[in-house]
Amino acid sequence: MIEELYISRLLNYLEEDAYPEDVTSRFLEGIRARGVVKSRDEGIIAGLRFIVPFLKYLGLEVIAHKRDGEAIHRGDAIIEVVGDASRLLAVERLTLNLLSRLSGIATATGTMVKLARSINPMVRVAGTRKTTPGFRAFEKYAIEVGGGDPHRFNLADAVLIKDNHIAIYGNLERLIRLVKEGTSFMRKVEVEVSTYEDAIRAYRAGADAILLDNMRPSDIAPIVGELKGRVILEASGGITLDNVVEYARTGVDIISSGYITHSSRALDLTMDAEGMQ
Amino acid sequence: MIEELYISRLLNYLEEDAYPEDVTSRFLEGIRARGVVKSRDEGIIAGLRFIVPFLKYLGLEVIAHKRDGEAIHRGDAIIEVVGDASRLLAVERLTLNLLSRLSGIATATGTMVKLARSINPMVRVAGTRKTTPGFRAFEKYAIEVGGGDPHRFNLADAVLIKDNHIAIYGNLERLIRLVKEGTSFMRKVEVEVSTYEDAIRAYRAGADAILLDNMRPSDIAPIVGELKGRVILEASGGITLDNVVEYARTGVDIISSGYITHSSRALDLTMDAEGMQ
Amino acid sequence: MIEELYISRLLNYLEEDAYPEDVTSRFLEGIRARGVVKSRDEGIIAGLRFIVPFLKYLGLEVIAHKRDGEAIHRGDAIIEVVGDASRLLAVERLTLNLLSRLSGIATATGTMVKLARSINPMVRVAGTRKTTPGFRAFEKYAIEVGGGDPHRFNLADAVLIKDNHIAIYGNLERLIRLVKEGTSFMRKVEVEVSTYEDAIRAYRAGADAILLDNMRPSDIAPIVGELKGRVILEASGGITLDNVVEYARTGVDIISSGYITHSSRALDLTMDAEGMQ
Amino acid sequence: MIEELYISRLLNYLEEDAYPEDVTSRFLEGIRARGVVKSRDEGIIAGLRFIVPFLKYLGLEVIAHKRDGEAIHRGDAIIEVVGDASRLLAVERLTLNLLSRLSGIATATGTMVKLARSINPMVRVAGTRKTTPGFRAFEKYAIEVGGGDPHRFNLADAVLIKDNHIAIYGNLERLIRLVKEGTSFMRKVEVEVSTYEDAIRAYRAGADAILLDNMRPSDIAPIVGELKGRVILEASGGITLDNVVEYARTGVDIISSGYITHSSRALDLTMDAEGMQ
Amino acid sequence: MIEELYISRLLNYLEEDAYPEDVTSRFLEGIRARGVVKSRDEGIIAGLRFIVPFLKYLGLEVIAHKRDGEAIHRGDAIIEVVGDASRLLAVERLTLNLLSRLSGIATATGTMVKLARSINPMVRVAGTRKTTPGFRAFEKYAIEVGGGDPHRFNLADAVLIKDNHIAIYGNLERLIRLVKEGTSFMRKVEVEVSTYEDAIRAYRAGADAILLDNMRPSDIAPIVGELKGRVILEASGGITLDNVVEYARTGVDIISSGYITHSSRALDLTMDAEGMQ
Amino acid sequence: MIEELYISRLLNYLEEDAYPEDVTSRFLEGIRARGVVKSRDEGIIAGLRFIVPFLKYLGLEVIAHKRDGEAIHRGDAIIEVVGDASRLLAVERLTLNLLSRLSGIATATGTMVKLARSINPMVRVAGTRKTTPGFRAFEKYAIEVGGGDPHRFNLADAVLIKDNHIAIYGNLERLIRLVKEGTSFMRKVEVEVSTYEDAIRAYRAGADAILLDNMRPSDIAPIVGELKGRVILEASGGITLDNVVEYARTGVDIISSGYITHSSRALDLTMDAEGMQ
Repeated sequence: MIEELYISRLLNYLEEDAYPEDVTSRFLEGIRARGVVKSRDEGIIAGLRFIVPFLKYLGLEVIAHKRDGEAIHRGDAIIEVVGDASRLLAVERLTLNLLSRLSGIATATGTMVKLARSINPMVRVAGTRKTTPGFRAFEKYAIEVGGGDPHRFNLADAVLIKDNHIAIYGNLERLIRLVKEGTSFMRKVEVEVSTYEDAIRAYRAGADAILLDNMRPSDIAPIVGELKGRVILEASGGITLDNVVEYARTGVDIISSGYITHSSRALDLTMDAEGMQ
Repeated sequence: MIEELYISRLLNYLEEDAYPEDVTSRFLEGIRARGVVKSRDEGIIAGLRFIVPFLKYLGLEVIAHKRDGEAIHRGDAIIEVVGDASRLLAVERLTLNLLSRLSGIATATGTMVKLARSINPMVRVAGTRKTTPGFRAFEKYAIEVGGGDPHRFNLADAVLIKDNHIAIYGNLERLIRLVKEGTSFMRKVEVEVSTYEDAIRAYRAGADAILLDNMRPSDIAPIVGELKGRVILEASGGITLDNVVEYARTGVDIISSGYITHSSRALDLTMDAEGMQ
Repeated sequence: MIEELYISRLLNYLEEDAYPEDVTSRFLEGIRARGVVKSRDEGIIAGLRFIVPFLKYLGLEVIAHKRDGEAIHRGDAIIEVVGDASRLLAVERLTLNLLSRLSGIATATGTMVKLARSINPMVRVAGTRKTTPGFRAFEKYAIEVGGGDPHRFNLADAVLIKDNHIAIYGNLERLIRLVKEGTSFMRKVEVEVSTYEDAIRAYRAGADAILLDNMRPSDIAPIVGELKGRVILEASGGITLDNVVEYARTGVDIISSGYITHSSRALDLTMDAEGMQ
Repeated sequence: MIEELYISRLLNYLEEDAYPEDVTSRFLEGIRARGVVKSRDEGIIAGLRFIVPFLKYLGLEVIAHKRDGEAIHRGDAIIEVVGDASRLLAVERLTLNLLSRLSGIATATGTMVKLARSINPMVRVAGTRKTTPGFRAFEKYAIEVGGGDPHRFNLADAVLIKDNHIAIYGNLERLIRLVKEGTSFMRKVEVEVSTYEDAIRAYRAGADAILLDNMRPSDIAPIVGELKGRVILEASGGITLDNVVEYARTGVDIISSGYITHSSRALDLTMDAEGMQ
Repeated sequence: MIEELYISRLLNYLEEDAYPEDVTSRFLEGIRARGVVKSRDEGIIAGLRFIVPFLKYLGLEVIAHKRDGEAIHRGDAIIEVVGDASRLLAVERLTLNLLSRLSGIATATGTMVKLARSINPMVRVAGTRKTTPGFRAFEKYAIEVGGGDPHRFNLADAVLIKDNHIAIYGNLERLIRLVKEGTSFMRKVEVEVSTYEDAIRAYRAGADAILLDNMRPSDIAPIVGELKGRVILEASGGITLDNVVEYARTGVDIISSGYITHSSRALDLTMDAEGMQ
Repeated sequence: MIEELYISRLLNYLEEDAYPEDVTSRFLEGIRARGVVKSRDEGIIAGLRFIVPFLKYLGLEVIAHKRDGEAIHRGDAIIEVVGDASRLLAVERLTLNLLSRLSGIATATGTMVKLARSINPMVRVAGTRKTTPGFRAFEKYAIEVGGGDPHRFNLADAVLIKDNHIAIYGNLERLIRLVKEGTSFMRKVEVEVSTYEDAIRAYRAGADAILLDNMRPSDIAPIVGELKGRVILEASGGITLDNVVEYARTGVDIISSGYITHSSRALDLTMDAEGMQ
């Protein structure tokens, strides 16, 4: 990863919070201070990859006690940051906001992966495009840190023919054929279906992957029985920590979940600071 | 609000998802279609203020059945969008991501306001700066739609002397005095404390507001007894839907909660589309 | 395609040329004029998709006599533009630069497609990432207009393990396995090789596509004989209009060429303008 | 030159290719590697001025064996780059795309300069505004590296009254007078003509330079005979390596050519990489 | 202050002046030079906080003889800058433009503060939003350097109900009440009036501050007599160095002046450069 | 002029003032209002060219009673703006700031032109690069509106060899020769001198224009006597309304003045608004 590509984004985020001036912390300018980011939660830490170089870019010294993907526990020190107090405190909230949100996503992903693989060791848990506008690259990164598959970054990197495409176009097979002819050979083509029959049709029309949308595990099982190993099978729609095991048990290759990005709980992180003599 | 100030942000969000090309929906170019955004959830809708002008900017026709702040129920149609199918589907996900996240925040805020005011009709529920990096203006807006107080937009628009400031500076009264002398007369000064004694000291030193951080309701009550009406009193720290009533009962003026932005659940919205003859 | 996503790019291009002021054309302000973009060349027109909405955005009236992908001949009128002379002439050069470059790429692509398919009707001609920095989306579009396959838009949308990756990593099979485990199921994996043996190894290790780099047609033929239909086969490296037929004859699925973007000749277009009474 | 003014442009170019992640090269993270940019072509190298500081900005070590403007030959090593393999390979294509395009322009310019001066040692070869949108500053730089004159950077830095201006305005002399009165004394005024008579008229009306557009050398010669030394004379229109000598022989001061930017062939450069123990 | 938040702004300013190339100073590339910024004026220096880090960012060595807020006199050396001559001279004008404008504002502010406090030691002199578009953060900073109060940074950080708001809405008290209910508790509410009666009404309706607009000192005095100490009183409208003492004498808390930003004279600064052997 | 090139700049300026929300004017949303921009000053209006299209872009209706360059008097209505009150008032300050600053510059320029031409009808008054960072294009425009010559837009559009260049390089003639050889034929070359001897030397070395810097009129006169008509002669340095006549009397071609941009007084404009039934 070229972390430099993220610096200007992080500067924009800091500008959102601290421009033109942190009217509180400015009064501490000239005092050297140390801040320790600590966890008040259990989970998987994510986001250090972005934050550590950024804090260094701002001239702060950083000691990282953890790396992205490591488990963290209540009371763990994650990073220590030393520098001018006015600067340390101006960037505190951005640091915590980014780490706690990404760690929340990584943690939810990790939990889901663990649950799913307890019953189906080969299954992958994937994200979706249900991310916060403007913040997707960070959230997709967090999914990977949590052991998940990022799925599509955007609408340009793979084809996914969804229910609305089919509803508008009218004919599943013809649409798949049209798409396969007109799409780069380097892009995969996935098709969303919600019945056994459509799954078979999509497979026969040449889909690389089939997304079984909003289907019950009991309806998915026969499709897996028929198509497993011949096409990638993905289950999606309303999958959370509560029901992921049942979906994993069906034998699908991929379980994707919007929950891990749009509704996961942020990890509770805090920073304790003190002056340094 | 000058909605034009948000158009380029929304274009950037669309670019994140759909640049240089939606390689699926492009195959539907030339087909006229209608999409209806529907709710599969209960709550308060927020974000139409941004999305409706944006969809119109993109040349789509929009009929809005709801306005920001209205209650929505399972099955409600929120907006109808008509236009070229390739365009409608390329912007579907951004539309849903923005509305569902903002509505989730508005809904959580609204619930908290209702709970808090059931016991303390004058109390305000406020947000915090615990927002998604880059997306704060939208999330603060959603708080207001839900009936909450946005609190500070950023570090420049009011002073909040927090625990870390005091820990580093060393003396509460001297820091408050320093800040009041050096801060514009147009900015309020709030001070975060966690004991009765510090609350009294902050009040005497001239704070406009006092943030009672991570204190139990039982510890807050005597402070309210002493200072109510003489200074604005805000309770904060770990307040969620589960305990907000207890905090409201203390008689504080303001209850602020990071939960409503960093950990609220997105509302479940969907779009159903069909071709038009 | 959401043309609005390109408007700000085109404005930046116009700014490059005409900011803060076209110090010549300003003297014609207030005179209504018509300009006709004409061809002095043979080829395929490309770029109207961007330029026509942009000229309209600038308040000019446009009549398009051609659409992207149509053949143009010496003397053909492509578009007519009417409006204030100062504005028409300020945007003339950008209009011509964009159209002539994209049409040059589309024309070279079209010629190559025609040649290749004369011997191998199923073969696809693909572009590469050898594009002008900052201008790739336009150039990839021109490839498609010319009948080609855009190949990867960027390094994020598919995996291509190249000679340098293998040289650095050291073991072809292990690298392919590592990549396949760590890459999203929605991304294809292509491997670049330059010998028969490596092609077989890449196939066996699970590559979705194999790029035969800088190999003679005679060396490619046996690989096609062995792997055709079991994996996508792409020939690349030094392929131009002069030798594309020989490569097509090998039976590969894909022929990719940097030539069509980095060294194709711009089409010769011009604009004739006149005042209107 | 302030190279820092180009860093953010180059970062944008890298973002175009490698954001959010190079999904292939990421698997080589942690391996130190060396890449050598080599020539497979003859020509003049250009672009190191931008690329070398940029690679250093990205934390890579660079040894430059050549400087912009030097001749390069088949097999020459141009620069060596050392650093993390994932980073080296993510930036390889941008490095090559920029250097090969700019070197192609510098080489075409240098060849044209050499040819033109073989017969007319004082003549200058100039570029035009026929550049790739968004990329002009780089291409103008390459013209200078090749020994050419960049001509106007944009429509704001000098006046050039072209055929279309005259066609719309109607009267050559009056337009020149109008322009000279209304234009800053620090900007030159050039007038495009295509006949002997108009050249004389433009000279008499006070043009600083006269552009003889699309005229045959035999028609240019008498104008040179008449006006040489009294006004700058520039020949333009369809001038390539094939006919530049004939134009140079006419004795004009300047020969300008769109060919060197819009249709020159990119130089064939490559990077060979290997791991380092 | 996070100076990094200003670097990209300063780069944009330099780009405005020196992109793509300083066509004069480039001829001095390779010569090491020293430039000394000197004052030809009396006043208060402001802007070094931005310029010094920026010059260092550009690789120039800087010795600062003054700090923002210090008095400067005719002939004083302010900073010395050493580096490549082409770079030093390319940034000279931006350096001088920024310092001379900000110092002019700081100086006018300082003079006004001194005059006002000679008669009323507790009075504050405040700026307004009458700043140069795009340059406000710098100008507000200069006001503070001169000893002034920056007042609102923008329309979002505090409420100021002005004459036009009242004229449109129609009822002073109702508007104040509406605003106080709908505005965050962290934002102050100021009301602009121009009569004694309205001042009393605004006070009674709960304004935090009252702006006495375009009133004569003799009309302000009775309002101060009535409301001093119960609400913040600000005088504004046509206040310059000539009449500030009379306004200060009224006993108001705040005197605000657009003059100090929109019509103050730039300080006369210059740079003397010389080559270094 | 392509006004669209300025819209995004004006949006940025509005964002500086009104993002994310005008917390006062929002309370007037839904009320239709009319605002009239009036003059409380005498002068020349400038900036309508930018502001009128911008207000229309924001959906406001505008009636312009004046055009840029017209004289305005105390009490004159300049433009009327009608639309939603919240929007009208949010953009009021930007409208006034831009118009009053540009009109101040145009007025100062116009006054200087009038004075100078009263004695020397052919003289031009020119601006300098002493402009507000980031705002130059607007200020140069105002100079032209006031009847002045904008001089160089930036360091790239013409050569000006200044005292510092010569001091560093060491030899006037050699530097001029070097520059003339290396500079595009389309750029003029001006040389700054401060003695009669250097003026002659610069002329002989081929300067297109000579800037007589910080010289007394009496020292300029003999240079004009010698060089008038053979080279453009420009006087500069400390020229204000007080002494411009003396400089004009010397017979120089150009008088340039930093005063008109860096120290001119903003024109006093105001907006009166009222609700509409």
